[in-house]
Amino acid sequence: MIKKQKKILSSGLHLLKLNQKRQMKNYSTIIQTLEDIRTPAFIVDLEKVTNNCNRMIEKSKKFNLSLRPHVKTHKTIQGALLQTNNIDKKIVVSTLSEANFFSEQFNDIHYAVPITSNEKLYQVLDLTKKVEKFHIEVDNEHAFKLIENFAKLNNVKFNLFVQVDSGQHRVGLDPNDESSISLIKQIINSPFVSFSGLYTHAGHSYSCKGEDEIRNIAKQEANAVSNFANQIKEKLGYKVKTVAVGSTPTCSIGDERVWSNSSLVNEIHPGNYVFYDYMQTKIGSCTLDDCSSYVLSTIIGVKPKLNQFTIDAGALSLSKDIGVSDNNNNEFSYGYIMEDDKLKITGLTQEIGIVSSSQPIDFEKFNIGKRIRIIPNHSCLSAALFEEYQIINNSKENTIIDQWKPNRGW
Amino acid sequence: MIKKQKKILSSGLHLLKLNQKRQMKNYSTIIQTLEDIRTPAFIVDLEKVTNNCNRMIEKSKKFNLSLRPHVKTHKTIQGALLQTNNIDKKIVVSTLSEANFFSEQFNDIHYAVPITSNEKLYQVLDLTKKVEKFHIEVDNEHAFKLIENFAKLNNVKFNLFVQVDSGQHRVGLDPNDESSISLIKQIINSPFVSFSGLYTHAGHSYSCKGEDEIRNIAKQEANAVSNFANQIKEKLGYKVKTVAVGSTPTCSIGDERVWSNSSLVNEIHPGNYVFYDYMQTKIGSCTLDDCSSYVLSTIIGVKPKLNQFTIDAGALSLSKDIGVSDNNNNEFSYGYIMEDDKLKITGLTQEIGIVSSSQPIDFEKFNIGKRIRIIPNHSCLSAALFEEYQIINNSKENTIIDQWKPNRGW
Repeated sequence: MIKKQKKILSSGLHLLKLNQKRQMKNYSTIIQTLEDIRTPAFIVDLEKVTNNCNRMIEKSKKFNLSLRPHVKTHKTIQGALLQTNNIDKKIVVSTLSEANFFSEQFNDIHYAVPITSNEKLYQVLDLTKKVEKFHIEVDNEHAFKLIENFAKLNNVKFNLFVQVDSGQHRVGLDPNDESSISLIKQIINSPFVSFSGLYTHAGHSYSCKGEDEIRNIAKQEANAVSNFANQIKEKLGYKVKTVAVGSTPTCSIGDERVWSNSSLVNEIHPGNYVFYDYMQTKIGSCTLDDCSSYVLSTIIGVKPKLNQFTIDAGALSLSKDIGVSDNNNNEFSYGYIMEDDKLKITGLTQEIGIVSSSQPIDFEKFNIGKRIRIIPNHSCLSAALFEEYQIINNSKENTIIDQWKPNRGW
Repeated sequence: MIKKQKKILSSGLHLLKLNQKRQMKNYSTIIQTLEDIRTPAFIVDLEKVTNNCNRMIEKSKKFNLSLRPHVKTHKTIQGALLQTNNIDKKIVVSTLSEANFFSEQFNDIHYAVPITSNEKLYQVLDLTKKVEKFHIEVDNEHAFKLIENFAKLNNVKFNLFVQVDSGQHRVGLDPNDESSISLIKQIINSPFVSFSGLYTHAGHSYSCKGEDEIRNIAKQEANAVSNFANQIKEKLGYKVKTVAVGSTPTCSIGDERVWSNSSLVNEIHPGNYVFYDYMQTKIGSCTLDDCSSYVLSTIIGVKPKLNQFTIDAGALSLSKDIGVSDNNNNEFSYGYIMEDDKLKITGLTQEIGIVSSSQPIDFEKFNIGKRIRIIPNHSCLSAALFEEYQIINNSKENTIIDQWKPNRGW
């Protein structure tokens, strides 16, 4: 009982202190810490992000590959500047909204989703005029004809990457299909487009477990575009300028065994590695310590009889991505709880998460008001749910030193 | 071949027409239609929303229940005005950001997530001063003491609902626990809070299938708060002002069999019914025709050999909510495709959806550029991913008549 009162008293003092801070100066100018920031909040460890970015920059230099990082995971100017070492100005984006957002600072932008005959082409037109090099992509003849026709009507020349399917079977042309070479020929000969190169994304690496499996996919990814570039050279006498591969698993593991000298691959475009996430640790792309972002959350209720508690992070802050976990086994969780890896997030409603454990939970430690840190299963989806990220210097410091505001929409 | 050229030509003419429109007047002032709006887009059928809202208003009148609708599904002023018939000014919100957003138009707001001892209480303080009646909620003594202490320190009186667990076991006090009456006594006797009433949400109704199962949960929900209100009357001699229940399944099915004269329930607070969604059709709350919102998407690639195609709606427009489907069976889909119910969305990456079918897909019909409409599994999560909703008059009309901008954040 005394212990309980003490706790309540100390919380009261904490609030009183905060109140004094508020009276001292305008609330918004108070330097916030992880203790007094409102939850849920998306926290980014600058040291880890910088390390992740620098490692990929070093790797691209070591293997003499151009790095055109994907910015879709964080969608912020600051993150993209770290990814490009603030020197190279070339990136990949996943939406036209991102393309527009980044066009002030970056002069070579590739919108890496196949485009079709709708309103998007008008924005592509604007971006082609605005950005020094703006690339779109295509993976079939029907779409190519539409793009070409549009370019002709609007008196413009589009830069065109061709997406190649290296095994994910999501988008991309089949490099083994006979019609593929014929499409490349049309593109090369068209006065309305300029052929930027080949692009592939081995998204099926997300179903890997461990380095060996990832390496196999990475080889498959590199071979698919490299062989196709060779075919183009042999059959059409044309040397493809850019031969690009990249997913975070394949680029994190990639080395001379993957990008050998005989490969024509000369560009990589990973994205998720900036933050990494719990899924990437399970795939084998990184360690838990590499994960540079987490959702900060507060315990809002405890149910000792049920051995569970509830937190103020729900589906609208963690996303409902189950990662690579099977939602029927005991290890299932909507994220990794850094305070105790026995704790699992077993349920998510819109604004509330339910945490349970196979072990008895220590409710002295995990009591109401306690803050917990959650590495999301899929950082791209979780980050996109926040209006801003709270930046800390490193994991030992509590002070919020900056806010990054991501782009959103399409 | 002629057919193919015709198609390309007609697309070209369509683009030419649009181009002429653009030259005629400033692009942003063009009246847009579902044909030329950029996808993915979140479309709301005003006629259906209005019908859904009016049915709930009529039902609450019929059973002499106060309706305090939850606005978390749409988070828009326009939606909330339809829910409240533009007369009653009381609503439930799921975040403090919503509370602030709606405070200009609504004077009786209940923030229905238990609050704990962090920065949120400062915003509660501001809102209590700003909104005529602003309610927060509590479900345990520890949190109550913190709230009371904060109110005392800040010389304010908070309006306090008590959340009751009616079987979901997420938040809420256990009405059968002996300490629960003791907490109510403390609340009634405290000079720092005003007891607003009892609130429960039978979230476990989301696992129901069919009216009978929902009705059983609805009875359980009503009985839990009603019996607890009776206990309070008997043991403390206190008549609870508001005894509130509500989830979309229980309120959609609710009738005299659930809210009998002997029940003390006098308020309902459903929310999702404004849009409904594919999950609600599976639960048994509504028909497909009641679903008033969908994600408009465009086919960006076809893979006839794999009997699949890809669309520009991914996890950032549909959310990764699997609804009530089992992700191992053949019926699994990340949403309901209105053009053909055999088509299933079997995979979602950040910006791309993969559609396949157990039947051979008609690729003449489902070709690149074709638009498809998807009723999301969970409209609350999908809607929250959009910066604005595109409003159409009714399902027979193509013109976008308005845009609604939802609130976001916390």
